[in-house]
Amino acid sequence: MTKLHGNAVIGQSGGPTAVINASLAGVYLAAKASGKIGTVLGMVNGFEGFLSERLVNLGNYLKTGEDLEQLCRTPASYLGSCRLKLPDWKENDKIYQEAFELFEKYDIRYFFYIGGNDSMDTVMKLSSYAKKTGKEICFIGVPKTIDNDLLATDHTPGYGSAAKYIATTLREITRDSQAYFLNSVTAVEIMGRNAGWLTASAALARQKEGDSPDLIYLPECSFSFEQYLADLKKVFQRKKNIIVAVSEGIRTSDGKYVCESVASGKEDVFGHKYLGGVANLLANYAAEKLSCKTRGIELNVPQRCAGHLISKTDMEEAVENGKSAVQFALEGRTGVMAAYERVSMEPYQIAFSPVEIESIANREKMIPSEWISGDRNDVTEEFVRYARPLIQGEVDLIYENGLPKQLVLPREDF
Amino acid sequence: MTKLHGNAVIGQSGGPTAVINASLAGVYLAAKASGKIGTVLGMVNGFEGFLSERLVNLGNYLKTGEDLEQLCRTPASYLGSCRLKLPDWKENDKIYQEAFELFEKYDIRYFFYIGGNDSMDTVMKLSSYAKKTGKEICFIGVPKTIDNDLLATDHTPGYGSAAKYIATTLREITRDSQAYFLNSVTAVEIMGRNAGWLTASAALARQKEGDSPDLIYLPECSFSFEQYLADLKKVFQRKKNIIVAVSEGIRTSDGKYVCESVASGKEDVFGHKYLGGVANLLANYAAEKLSCKTRGIELNVPQRCAGHLISKTDMEEAVENGKSAVQFALEGRTGVMAAYERVSMEPYQIAFSPVEIESIANREKMIPSEWISGDRNDVTEEFVRYARPLIQGEVDLIYENGLPKQLVLPREDF
Repeated sequence: MTKLHGNAVIGQSGGPTAVINASLAGVYLAAKASGKIGTVLGMVNGFEGFLSERLVNLGNYLKTGEDLEQLCRTPASYLGSCRLKLPDWKENDKIYQEAFELFEKYDIRYFFYIGGNDSMDTVMKLSSYAKKTGKEICFIGVPKTIDNDLLATDHTPGYGSAAKYIATTLREITRDSQAYFLNSVTAVEIMGRNAGWLTASAALARQKEGDSPDLIYLPECSFSFEQYLADLKKVFQRKKNIIVAVSEGIRTSDGKYVCESVASGKEDVFGHKYLGGVANLLANYAAEKLSCKTRGIELNVPQRCAGHLISKTDMEEAVENGKSAVQFALEGRTGVMAAYERVSMEPYQIAFSPVEIESIANREKMIPSEWISGDRNDVTEEFVRYARPLIQGEVDLIYENGLPKQLVLPREDF
Repeated sequence: MTKLHGNAVIGQSGGPTAVINASLAGVYLAAKASGKIGTVLGMVNGFEGFLSERLVNLGNYLKTGEDLEQLCRTPASYLGSCRLKLPDWKENDKIYQEAFELFEKYDIRYFFYIGGNDSMDTVMKLSSYAKKTGKEICFIGVPKTIDNDLLATDHTPGYGSAAKYIATTLREITRDSQAYFLNSVTAVEIMGRNAGWLTASAALARQKEGDSPDLIYLPECSFSFEQYLADLKKVFQRKKNIIVAVSEGIRTSDGKYVCESVASGKEDVFGHKYLGGVANLLANYAAEKLSCKTRGIELNVPQRCAGHLISKTDMEEAVENGKSAVQFALEGRTGVMAAYERVSMEPYQIAFSPVEIESIANREKMIPSEWISGDRNDVTEEFVRYARPLIQGEVDLIYENGLPKQLVLPREDF
């Protein structure tokens, strides 16, 4: 009989995605299969919950293969999430002492944290504290974010599913916008405050060349209302119904968010009372200047939790990625994230490798400038070649009463 | 060889739905199969387009079985739509004379119009004019509306798919809202200005008793902010994350739309600048009064065009309904709509019958009072029993490059 190394604990952190639970399933499955890990604990509400000892023995909840299949198909953090920024331990190590006492209490040997760049900061700090104090615990980061803005990884789990949802919805909105025989501008607001990966995925909606979306405004490029108006007029020369995909995070050349006037409740730049986010702002501007029908649509949270439309590629990769994290831990790695590496473009093929977490934590990856069109209102074919493999494949969902069934941690237990 | 009766013309009118093209496919298929109808023409942009002779021979575009399968799976009006209110022909029959000259020019014997209560007004007026002038043309209405507000029909095609989308999305938003360990109110704005059928469908999102949505506010009941606050406090006694489903059309007891202050750009009732529709209004109110995390989400047009999540029952019924319209026409009926009749509750079973269009045109069906809960913030189990069969079944979509493929009428042709 193999000697057990100790127990493992897994947490989820930051904003939810549609496949963050597939990563959890991957870690859980590999940990159980390893034969070297005892109990697999889940932190309820991330590291914040861990510090309050809100822990579950995952084996009590993930009992069957069907449970795990359902887990992979359930969007948003099964274990709950948190947004906790740890202090620098060189300045204040109180929280670290408490945490490491709990690690000892629960005989934790492996710590897995599924999250984005902020969550990787937690992994980085805990692992560096462990190294300094000589604790033999492996801290492994598992990537997660719809924003796709993590460095040192080809892409992030969650992005492919969000992109599939955005592109599908954009294509459907295009059909809807073409119903009437009149000129129209439909502005669609997409998540991503600083990095434009999600907004760029709108380009995948095109069934053939010349299809909508017609204009794509990314946060990587400064936004000008004059240029926007010129862009609209140019598109109207060839079609009646314009679809604009716009990032919530677009900024004018002075660096101010275009939607900043909104949050403050001020009048917008045209002296109108503000009627919503940046989509409504762009729609209202077009209505004012071009006297056409307009509509603003904010895709909102369904972008990150549309479990009914996940990318099969994304889900399967997330499971494998979670498994790879366990492998790296068992190899004794710590302070690393299980990154995606694109080993082949044609056919598309991914491998996982451990990357030092210092190169990832608290940093953001933007769309390369050469993947943005010359007139800064679209993406290039290179972006499409990069992103298209990530949205491939559909998952067989488990339906009950006409709706996708979800696996829910009974909240009354905690 | 059967003698042909003449040609048929089909139009789509009013707001799009996810299965309005399945109705079109049904009419087309039955017309071709009848052996009694010559050419099947499509009006591009409804009756308005017909009057400008913007017509297509549908046989040139719907050539294969695959074309028709794709048509059924493509949301929003394939032929384009219009919103045209005909004058009373007793007062002004100019447009009628023009129309009937065109009917003669194109040898039209059958006229099918797919639409809601406004579109049924067109069918009613044309058929009554034909009767008065002795023209032997059959005018048949084919129901369509996500709002489910047509009288004399058990339900309308398009409603089941919209309800499936709304319930699925609500369930996903519920998962998302539970991520953090704090009190939250998420208000979700749903279409339906006067009738609450779509908002009520949010109730289908519940996987088990006590699940979200926790409060459902229908336009059938007058809305009070004091009661809303009391309702929230009551739900907070048993759970941390509240989901509110609210109709865009809720009104206060004085009959004014709660969101009226929005459109006018005025400050809202709390002296704040308005930040969007009724969902944001309810979210902001909760944030102000209860100091909790809040979010407003407007489901917006994806409710009516989410072709990727249509109800199989809805799609198949729409095809059969379109076929029944042709049958009624061939039986010589005119001035009727092909209505849905629920002939059995268990098992759920539907038949189609022709109903006089006067009983439908320009009228709206509301949710029966007995299907609304005693405290006016939910629906009863009877509503759920009524609505659940309509969202059953999933359609095998045709995917290409990771997205549902759509059939698009080449716009450059018209």
